Amino acid sequence: MNDCIYLDNNATTKIDDDVLAAMLPYLSIYYGNPSSMHTFGGQVGRAVRQARSQVASLLGAEDSEIIFTSCGTEGDNAAILAALKAQPNKKHIITTEVEHPAILNLCRKLEKDGYTVTYLSVNDQGQLDLDELEASLTGNTAVVSVMYANNETGVIFPIEQIGQIVKEYSALFHVDAVQAVGKIPLNMKTSTIDMLTLSGHKIHAPKGIGALYVRKGVRFRPLLVGGHQERGRRGGTENVAGIVALGEAAKLAQQHLAGVVWEKRLRDKLEQGILNSIPNTVINGDPVNRLPNTTNIGFKYIEGEAILLSLDQFGICASSGSACTSGSLEPSHVLRALGLPYSVLHGSIRFSLSRYTTEAEIDRVLEVLPGIIERLRELSPFNSDDADWLKEQESLVISR
Amino acid sequence: MNDCIYLDNNATTKIDDDVLAAMLPYLSIYYGNPSSMHTFGGQVGRAVRQARSQVASLLGAEDSEIIFTSCGTEGDNAAILAALKAQPNKKHIITTEVEHPAILNLCRKLEKDGYTVTYLSVNDQGQLDLDELEASLTGNTAVVSVMYANNETGVIFPIEQIGQIVKEYSALFHVDAVQAVGKIPLNMKTSTIDMLTLSGHKIHAPKGIGALYVRKGVRFRPLLVGGHQERGRRGGTENVAGIVALGEAAKLAQQHLAGVVWEKRLRDKLEQGILNSIPNTVINGDPVNRLPNTTNIGFKYIEGEAILLSLDQFGICASSGSACTSGSLEPSHVLRALGLPYSVLHGSIRFSLSRYTTEAEIDRVLEVLPGIIERLRELSPFNSDDADWLKEQESLVISR
Repeated sequence: MNDCIYLDNNATTKIDDDVLAAMLPYLSIYYGNPSSMHTFGGQVGRAVRQARSQVASLLGAEDSEIIFTSCGTEGDNAAILAALKAQPNKKHIITTEVEHPAILNLCRKLEKDGYTVTYLSVNDQGQLDLDELEASLTGNTAVVSVMYANNETGVIFPIEQIGQIVKEYSALFHVDAVQAVGKIPLNMKTSTIDMLTLSGHKIHAPKGIGALYVRKGVRFRPLLVGGHQERGRRGGTENVAGIVALGEAAKLAQQHLAGVVWEKRLRDKLEQGILNSIPNTVINGDPVNRLPNTTNIGFKYIEGEAILLSLDQFGICASSGSACTSGSLEPSHVLRALGLPYSVLHGSIRFSLSRYTTEAEIDRVLEVLPGIIERLRELSPFNSDDADWLKEQESLVISR
Repeated sequence: MNDCIYLDNNATTKIDDDVLAAMLPYLSIYYGNPSSMHTFGGQVGRAVRQARSQVASLLGAEDSEIIFTSCGTEGDNAAILAALKAQPNKKHIITTEVEHPAILNLCRKLEKDGYTVTYLSVNDQGQLDLDELEASLTGNTAVVSVMYANNETGVIFPIEQIGQIVKEYSALFHVDAVQAVGKIPLNMKTSTIDMLTLSGHKIHAPKGIGALYVRKGVRFRPLLVGGHQERGRRGGTENVAGIVALGEAAKLAQQHLAGVVWEKRLRDKLEQGILNSIPNTVINGDPVNRLPNTTNIGFKYIEGEAILLSLDQFGICASSGSACTSGSLEPSHVLRALGLPYSVLHGSIRFSLSRYTTEAEIDRVLEVLPGIIERLRELSPFNSDDADWLKEQESLVISR
């Protein structure tokens, strides 16, 4: 199954061979506990320190500002909850309608606990209205949490502009950068960001490891309370092999940053090829301010799931939304927030590339996709002729 | 450094070769996201399901009762917090003085949040007084959290007797079984336990993976809030390779349960050898109800750290307490709770064996240790002749 055409890199990525090679000794020879006092444990502790420097370097951060976590969700949860604990008198949170479930579902839970949450809307290109942000901020706002780039559409938010506004109030600024890290240069030294979440498995490290950047001076309280690990900021024996892998992956991501034009060129080729060869297709989201590896394309009048199944038969992996919400029959909350018409909402597919994507793979997708779409449209119960039915459905969507 | 004599298996364990072999394909070929809809992700999802069955089998549990976590600390935190959220009107927690920091430090934090915590004392053998437990339980008690076996002394608590008492009240019963799993047969079908924590890296799986057993019908609220993973009970992309490794490790642990007599025989040989050849040594904790792989020995009149450093020079890894609290200059909270005299408290060493420990390794320790202790005692500022000074110190310890 390794010969599949994997265009689902926003869901998870292949582990880089160098990353695997770096972590393997810590799954075999060097199995000690980095907190142990003996030399055997000490060797492992040094590897953790090196990995921390590598992750810090990718972010332009200091080593002491990096806390290793188990995943992006843990980082997001820890950041929001720490911001609230540090400012017990503030009961307001601002986020956006298009965040990852790790932020949205936490915020919904916090609403039940007595917090007020503002969910900023996006326009039809998936962009925020910064006036709405400014109008929402009050002295009661504890934290503003905005993603750097959207996992489904790739839309990039103007993070530093947002940060400037947030800093006029005394709120903390958290950024979920899980999709942006490794694709966009980041420099915490010149940034307004107070806390930033990243996840290893989106940058060719394994699943089960992530990191949270916490700016020096920002008060932090641990989500996982236990031993003294991570300088008392995250209890639990360190996932040493995962940490070493994340360090190596961060190093490689930093080296590859200039090379992301590779993904962009192939993404653009795929996108243009689809738009040119398949009628009734649209690009969802801001076509300019967008991750270089991601395209979200609406194929009108057919179901995204049917497209995915057909692609799967050709060994092509793509997605109809976030893997974290797949399995649900509801259309993507991100595409709904863009106010897309029903016909597009249900027929949208995300292709997300990586540095491993080849030109031949893109050519193959462009070879088979037109036939797939044509066949599905012939079978579709709501093909483009059913104008009345569609009109009714679209008005239903708009009204909710 | 792989030729060290590793007798620190309660801190962490060597990853079994079969475990590494089982997880490797999920660090290379099968890197898909188990939540993805394509075949490539689906293959990975099946591996996660198999691992869940393997862990459930070790515990005599149902698959749906297993939640994968990132570590023992996460499991402990999640269990206590879920118990409190499920019973918002109950504000009392019962635990013991000798728990792991993942429970103790969480409880101290919860006291600041308005909860009342009873810390049950232990006697000089490290055992609980069940009358004290019963006297502490009230209708306001939300959860009783007691470890199955102590990480430092190996002392095993009478869990089912405790559970019987807890169940007379309507409290939930959580057990931190991180040190017991794989060393003691467990069967949730006939147990009083509501929730049970285990950690992979204590049973020859890697660091960064664990599981929480939650009995069917026990209300649970997630600690990590995000996507629908783990049936909505733990957000975050699954640590697939870690989960597969934990499954294989659970399978091997189950197969090895009867073979734990190996560790016991070598542990007893080590212990008797030390007691017979080195004067002024004592076994700390209940000598009968104890993990088969653990011995905690007090070498009077010397500092444990000095013994560890000397052992380290011979390539022998042991510990003076929990790795999670090492680095602290305070003597172990566990040994302090036993009320040990000052002379023993500061000179105690834990040896913890595994199925990889060999007879030759034990013989080597018995060969070098008497000389180490003799030399250190000669150098010791508080050797056994300073009776007055010692008496003063011991009365200080007793008074705190």
